[in-house]
Amino acid sequence: MTDASAPVLHYDLDHEGDVSRLVYTFGGVDARVSLAPGTVVDTSSLDCFAGQIRSEHDHASVVCDPRYLNPQTGPFYVEGALPGDVLAVHFARIAPRHTAGFSTTVPLFGALTANGFTQMLHAPLPEMTWRYDIDQEARTVRYQARESAAMYTLPLDPMHGTVGVAPALNEARSALTPGDWGGNMDTPEMRSGVTCYLGVNVEGALFSFGDGHARQGEGETCGVAVETAMDTVMVVDLIKDVSPVRWPRIESDTEIITTGSTKPLEDAFRISQVEMVHWIAELTGLSMMDAYQFVSQAAQSPVANVVDTNYTMVAKVKKSYLPGTNAMNGVHARLKAIGEAYLATR
Amino acid sequence: MTDASAPVLHYDLDHEGDVSRLVYTFGGVDARVSLAPGTVVDTSSLDCFAGQIRSEHDHASVVCDPRYLNPQTGPFYVEGALPGDVLAVHFARIAPRHTAGFSTTVPLFGALTANGFTQMLHAPLPEMTWRYDIDQEARTVRYQARESAAMYTLPLDPMHGTVGVAPALNEARSALTPGDWGGNMDTPEMRSGVTCYLGVNVEGALFSFGDGHARQGEGETCGVAVETAMDTVMVVDLIKDVSPVRWPRIESDTEIITTGSTKPLEDAFRISQVEMVHWIAELTGLSMMDAYQFVSQAAQSPVANVVDTNYTMVAKVKKSYLPGTNAMNGVHARLKAIGEAYLATR
Amino acid sequence: MTDASAPVLHYDLDHEGDVSRLVYTFGGVDARVSLAPGTVVDTSSLDCFAGQIRSEHDHASVVCDPRYLNPQTGPFYVEGALPGDVLAVHFARIAPRHTAGFSTTVPLFGALTANGFTQMLHAPLPEMTWRYDIDQEARTVRYQARESAAMYTLPLDPMHGTVGVAPALNEARSALTPGDWGGNMDTPEMRSGVTCYLGVNVEGALFSFGDGHARQGEGETCGVAVETAMDTVMVVDLIKDVSPVRWPRIESDTEIITTGSTKPLEDAFRISQVEMVHWIAELTGLSMMDAYQFVSQAAQSPVANVVDTNYTMVAKVKKSYLPGTNAMNGVHARLKAIGEAYLATR
Amino acid sequence: MTDASAPVLHYDLDHEGDVSRLVYTFGGVDARVSLAPGTVVDTSSLDCFAGQIRSEHDHASVVCDPRYLNPQTGPFYVEGALPGDVLAVHFARIAPRHTAGFSTTVPLFGALTANGFTQMLHAPLPEMTWRYDIDQEARTVRYQARESAAMYTLPLDPMHGTVGVAPALNEARSALTPGDWGGNMDTPEMRSGVTCYLGVNVEGALFSFGDGHARQGEGETCGVAVETAMDTVMVVDLIKDVSPVRWPRIESDTEIITTGSTKPLEDAFRISQVEMVHWIAELTGLSMMDAYQFVSQAAQSPVANVVDTNYTMVAKVKKSYLPGTNAMNGVHARLKAIGEAYLATR
Repeated sequence: MTDASAPVLHYDLDHEGDVSRLVYTFGGVDARVSLAPGTVVDTSSLDCFAGQIRSEHDHASVVCDPRYLNPQTGPFYVEGALPGDVLAVHFARIAPRHTAGFSTTVPLFGALTANGFTQMLHAPLPEMTWRYDIDQEARTVRYQARESAAMYTLPLDPMHGTVGVAPALNEARSALTPGDWGGNMDTPEMRSGVTCYLGVNVEGALFSFGDGHARQGEGETCGVAVETAMDTVMVVDLIKDVSPVRWPRIESDTEIITTGSTKPLEDAFRISQVEMVHWIAELTGLSMMDAYQFVSQAAQSPVANVVDTNYTMVAKVKKSYLPGTNAMNGVHARLKAIGEAYLATR
Repeated sequence: MTDASAPVLHYDLDHEGDVSRLVYTFGGVDARVSLAPGTVVDTSSLDCFAGQIRSEHDHASVVCDPRYLNPQTGPFYVEGALPGDVLAVHFARIAPRHTAGFSTTVPLFGALTANGFTQMLHAPLPEMTWRYDIDQEARTVRYQARESAAMYTLPLDPMHGTVGVAPALNEARSALTPGDWGGNMDTPEMRSGVTCYLGVNVEGALFSFGDGHARQGEGETCGVAVETAMDTVMVVDLIKDVSPVRWPRIESDTEIITTGSTKPLEDAFRISQVEMVHWIAELTGLSMMDAYQFVSQAAQSPVANVVDTNYTMVAKVKKSYLPGTNAMNGVHARLKAIGEAYLATR
Repeated sequence: MTDASAPVLHYDLDHEGDVSRLVYTFGGVDARVSLAPGTVVDTSSLDCFAGQIRSEHDHASVVCDPRYLNPQTGPFYVEGALPGDVLAVHFARIAPRHTAGFSTTVPLFGALTANGFTQMLHAPLPEMTWRYDIDQEARTVRYQARESAAMYTLPLDPMHGTVGVAPALNEARSALTPGDWGGNMDTPEMRSGVTCYLGVNVEGALFSFGDGHARQGEGETCGVAVETAMDTVMVVDLIKDVSPVRWPRIESDTEIITTGSTKPLEDAFRISQVEMVHWIAELTGLSMMDAYQFVSQAAQSPVANVVDTNYTMVAKVKKSYLPGTNAMNGVHARLKAIGEAYLATR
Repeated sequence: MTDASAPVLHYDLDHEGDVSRLVYTFGGVDARVSLAPGTVVDTSSLDCFAGQIRSEHDHASVVCDPRYLNPQTGPFYVEGALPGDVLAVHFARIAPRHTAGFSTTVPLFGALTANGFTQMLHAPLPEMTWRYDIDQEARTVRYQARESAAMYTLPLDPMHGTVGVAPALNEARSALTPGDWGGNMDTPEMRSGVTCYLGVNVEGALFSFGDGHARQGEGETCGVAVETAMDTVMVVDLIKDVSPVRWPRIESDTEIITTGSTKPLEDAFRISQVEMVHWIAELTGLSMMDAYQFVSQAAQSPVANVVDTNYTMVAKVKKSYLPGTNAMNGVHARLKAIGEAYLATR
């Protein structure tokens, strides 16, 4: 496939209120649109509040309906996708649609508060909302304290918290949950420029995405990042001739990345590390034990989220440590070229 | 205190077999030597195997006595140290003493195997040893596979896995365990150039250190890093006029870092993040809720170890995000200058 | 409602192969049959293997299709059930349909083996099947060792491992998973004679059940109980005038019981205990703190399962400790009387 | 040894304030008294507050010094005890010394509150104290609510929360912590009439005990049971000819019981279950896999504590399920007879 020949799907949401292109589960919903492998998708997503937080005076528990949190754009039916295939989604561009993002605390949600699973007898922490100015030129977001006049500047680093396909076993999972189908992994590694690999469970894959973050700390500690609607350009492809991908993977220009999503957090760690051991063994020809040793010295292992209904860990290994390897038959470089060609001509 | 006036303590181990300067617990042992705050300590440490692994044909379960694993150099009695004070240990230089390091698997120890706490009915994974060539000029270590001829080169990044003081409550804790006294945290953040802050629990603090790693992946997944004896230059100081430090902290030139060590891993995460929220609130004057929000967007949160008797997480925030703040009254910059002055004249 | 007037629904499976009355998820499937509150349901269920294990020579990984494990009888549409109501299901009789039950190990499944979430690098434990003779007269099951001639006799104690309703948020959850909708809780407390209370999430409740166990240890340690098809008589009712039930509850003649299903196991414990604190506060008028104290001294807290995709804990308090209280307005005694009347006249 | 010949050690505390017979760690302290195997020890223990809570108006955070919580009577040096031996402690009688016991909440301690390890940003729950009348004739304790006039009666069931020996690896562990040396397991199974088995780690074993509870719920949810000083008669013996006991075990007239103490709670479960699998295999000659299957159907698995620095689970199997087996060569029956003979003649 050449860059010039890449089909393009323009698929915009009606950001003024038509919700027919939004879904709230992975699985359990019909495809909204179909595309061929290799298609450039020029699209957008709402923020996790469905746009209902409009100032620091809005509280999620008041303005949001829990049934309609974290709306996803999709599902996209990928022609030819069958269980066992690997879906590759390259994020050529993730750009905040607005000049402000919002973060909040939510009663009994978050890592440093009693919550619906780590139940306790405490009253909730205060519910508060923070507004961040987003400056796309300067590539910054501006933190503004609520209980003082302090301001701090942080780098803009746009990403999607939620990316996934329909799960196996006929499950339909809330867009608030991450798992082996992807979903609400909330890792800052899902940033502009990377390719995400997802194992296909059902015909057509039924890919959806959303939950844009202008930036996010590792752990998403209070449960909410700098949430914002996004304009997103993806290149979506299908890989047929590789080993099955059991848990979502990511590839950047410089790193290969595995994920695991479950509780307790050490089990999420274990999944991400076992996945990396097996991936490296496959890429290099190392034995399992040799790959275990290599990963033990080479991996970076940041937290993604410790707030959602499953927790997510990632394992990362620099490609420069593994000269001569070529993950997923080079699809990342190929999709990146397609994305750049499209953006250059848009 | 001026650099020129810094007292110097030369305290070398007898690497040929006198073990009188080695201990295996934090607490429960008498001080070996006393020093004044501000002293430069020019010293060394054995590797975690007490030097008993000498080739890839040595197995830890054969050549090591479990009672004498992870020998620590110390304890150092710091004059004037009282419970509630903060001990500052600046690692001016951590240099591998030898040109080889070793890593191993150990039966029923490690993150991806049944072990003494995550007990299962499996037979152990194979016990194997890997030898790494250490090139201090090139700043690399060379991984050599055991079950093939593959070789990979990784950056040299020397650190100490174990750094701590005597615990509270008259406890004596094995040097294999991390906790609020420090101990076997096994974080690569404890690298050459940083300052570690430890809350003092007993008169004299009774500081010890050891477990040098030529490098380590985040998580120390198989349980063993690239282990090597170290020549280490530290500057040890006492801080009296700051808030108590309940869990070990680290400061580098670019970051402030908190730690938490317990199980499950999400509780280690919670500790490190709560510590960072309170530290940032104190440094900036932000309210607790405002600091919670800031940390949620700003923190990096890598795993340290998921293999020891407690697991360790760290939280990191770039100092550049917090202009105008001055952690621990600037002790890091001061100790760094002392260390550099000493090294320049050695 | 009088016993004599209770409507009766005979709803038998075709145990010879028609699977149209079986489902594999809670949610995501249409009701198979409708019933009025107060109905006696005289029905049956397949075992978790869908009957495919027929001797100790059958292995689950060979004879079972993972998509069709743990078939559930249902869903039953309960007329008038609306979100916020409480569904009461009294198990008047749970009787093994056959004279043999089977248990197995399953590769990479169970509490004392590496598994799909606690991932490790071990090869699976051996896959084996055990046959238990069931003697309904003697009320026993007979354990027969596979690797020796040893035999032991254990009490028959029939129960359903899986009981639940459609989840909230439009989720469809595999029948292998427990959660706040019930599902695969695998607690021996769900035995013949108890009443289960489930919060209704969708119109009609969409109740299903299955996974009969002739008996089960607490924890279901190897992941599989003494599995057997069951003939079951239930009385299904709806409670409209009580506080919402957020997590499944059970009432026996002698105890009130709460459940929590999540990971890690301490969070499942917390949920079950918080639920018990609130239930006791409501039943007795005790303040939250007084109820917390009471539960701390009064509760029994056995494990249910530590093998499924969520782990389940229960908390139990003897009714004799709380004279004068009347859980759920006495529905347990009322449904029990209906069930006994039906069984007496059958 | 005949009952008549059993040596007797009277070892009473000075309950009026001499603390020379009290210790606060397992390990790290010298033996206070020596005894021969087979000795009857007629002794007593303080409550966990060292007697400082005297009414419901006393708060632990005010009247107790954290360094002197949970005082232990001991250590007892058992003549001839060597590492690898098994210490058997039969509790012939555990009788509350007073007519009142106390329970409290403690700020940031307990299962349903943020605490020192599950750190959060909540303010503590209210600190309160409850007084229980203890009626030894009626075998009851009386719960009296603090925020209403409600009263409830619960069975008296005296036990020791803390029983242990010196740990391995020269560790000294706070009496607030449980582990493989025993310690603060807080299981109601450690009741009057049982025999506790502890693996010996150091010469003389250095056994201590304390933390009497008039009764305790499973989990000790608020962190504090019905605490009371105890008059205790034990028979202490040494077993040389059995397999090592790696984690504390208990034997009652009707059950064999294993324990595991760590976090997360599922790992404590795993330890207790693996221990039971191996114990049953040893007692019966069953293979490991056959014993795994048997335990999966036969075990009861209650929580002990989910509040201490490690959590404790127990696994129980009824002896009646295993006719013909004889745990620990019958030491329980033998020590019980000695204890009864002593009590009959006292």
